[in-house]
Amino acid sequence: MQKISIAIVGWGNVGRACRRAIGECSDMVLKGVVRRPSSLSFGDPELQTTKVVSDIKALGQIDVALLCIPSREVPQRIKEYQALKINTVDSYDEHQNIASLRRELDMTAKVKKTVSVFAAGWDPGTDSSVRALMKVVSLTGRTTTTFGGEQGGRSMGHTVQVKSIDGVKDAVALTLANGRGKQKRKVYVELKAGADIRKIEKEILSDSYFKSEPTEVIAVESIEPYNTLHHSAEIERTGMEVKQTYTVEGTNPEFTANVMVASARACMRAVRKEEYGVYTFIERPIIDYLPGNSPEERLEGY
Amino acid sequence: MQKISIAIVGWGNVGRACRRAIGECSDMVLKGVVRRPSSLSFGDPELQTTKVVSDIKALGQIDVALLCIPSREVPQRIKEYQALKINTVDSYDEHQNIASLRRELDMTAKVKKTVSVFAAGWDPGTDSSVRALMKVVSLTGRTTTTFGGEQGGRSMGHTVQVKSIDGVKDAVALTLANGRGKQKRKVYVELKAGADIRKIEKEILSDSYFKSEPTEVIAVESIEPYNTLHHSAEIERTGMEVKQTYTVEGTNPEFTANVMVASARACMRAVRKEEYGVYTFIERPIIDYLPGNSPEERLEGY
Repeated sequence: MQKISIAIVGWGNVGRACRRAIGECSDMVLKGVVRRPSSLSFGDPELQTTKVVSDIKALGQIDVALLCIPSREVPQRIKEYQALKINTVDSYDEHQNIASLRRELDMTAKVKKTVSVFAAGWDPGTDSSVRALMKVVSLTGRTTTTFGGEQGGRSMGHTVQVKSIDGVKDAVALTLANGRGKQKRKVYVELKAGADIRKIEKEILSDSYFKSEPTEVIAVESIEPYNTLHHSAEIERTGMEVKQTYTVEGTNPEFTANVMVASARACMRAVRKEEYGVYTFIERPIIDYLPGNSPEERLEGY
Repeated sequence: MQKISIAIVGWGNVGRACRRAIGECSDMVLKGVVRRPSSLSFGDPELQTTKVVSDIKALGQIDVALLCIPSREVPQRIKEYQALKINTVDSYDEHQNIASLRRELDMTAKVKKTVSVFAAGWDPGTDSSVRALMKVVSLTGRTTTTFGGEQGGRSMGHTVQVKSIDGVKDAVALTLANGRGKQKRKVYVELKAGADIRKIEKEILSDSYFKSEPTEVIAVESIEPYNTLHHSAEIERTGMEVKQTYTVEGTNPEFTANVMVASARACMRAVRKEEYGVYTFIERPIIDYLPGNSPEERLEGY
């Protein structure tokens, strides 16, 4: 079986973690990293042995591009890559837009004969699968997802959003449990010289990433004491006859990257079956995310 | 959208629970129950308003037959129904035979243009999906499944097997946790007059359902004090950077039935796409198990 050739697009926490995850997969090969032209010249010791380009076309034939860029740049990038007939995987994370973006992007995918596995991180992504499975086990019932626990966890999407605001030098956005199925956020911000924390706070609080949960914005000299890569979630479903819980905790970019890299496998299995389109994580069979060539191999542990 | 017409085959704990589960699904209709000819005449108040037959052909057009019969009768019954072009769902539970039976039965399904969702209960079934998802989140690591906890749970497959032994009047087989990822079994047996408990014990201990775990066989006057429908499982995966746990507990026939009924939906979605074959639970997209006509509806809560 030919190896799946991968491009990592973006070199933040998730891009780096994807490189590590690809290294664990004997069925994949990393062809290179795509970065902004302005970042190309920054020497990065991790990239000594990896081809770094500013245009994915310079990498030659790519099976799947892993979009490790800010969530809000994902839809546009999928469109650009569809035009180039490049399949993609991303961990787009704004839940409320997923169904409509999926429908919009799906039409071009079918025309251009590409596959995208969309919104395929841990949440949305594998957590979404757990929520769907829990409904299968107990059709009636109520599901809650609680992020971050008492100590809080790093929300990558939210952190990236705050960092993009004018006047912000560095930031970390933490998500903390605020009772079952509810959360609150704490955003620690290092300011650039002359920046106005009230203006930044206003911008944060009005953003769709933040406006539905209680959010505290705190200016700090250094985000270091608050910085963490740890995150966690607890999903619970209570039905009439059944109670289910799922918890996941660990280093956030690692699990996002693991899910994205496994999704590259499901992506290529769809391409081989000519099932072109844009699919959320739960729209492809779980077995397609697992390594192994034969069903027997992939049913190990079933 | 036309409703999925269902036959329940077998009228034990799971068959009864399937009827209740179908009642919750507005996209399904129960056409009747198939029982052994010897059982047809037994009046059952639950079956007053349901057609009961000994041959599925007497029910007319059926989309999916839910095979609520002893696991070991499932492969043969799938073959019979494939010949009649009837799609099936079952909760076959002998893990070690699943991959080979799937391959064997799949060939006829493709010829006869039927779909079977195979080994689609809670374990194997939804638990298998959880184990597969946990691997996606953390490719390296170790997964353990522990059944029954300290108080023990009713294993339906094992109970049915013991009840089929000559000289057994009634029985219940409990599974108890025996350290992480390990279990032991306690089998309570009511004997028929003149039956030899040592002979029955020997038969139980040599059966593939029991031979890999420590099993205690206990003759009792009445199984009533030990009888329960409760069961539970805890799945854990510990990887380098991620720890995940999933627990499910409740009334065993209820969750088996819920999964089987949801699988009828995935079965018919495969039929409509003409993707004939025999599929384990993880080989169909999770979204196909959920009710709702549009992707938008089924992506609710994604």
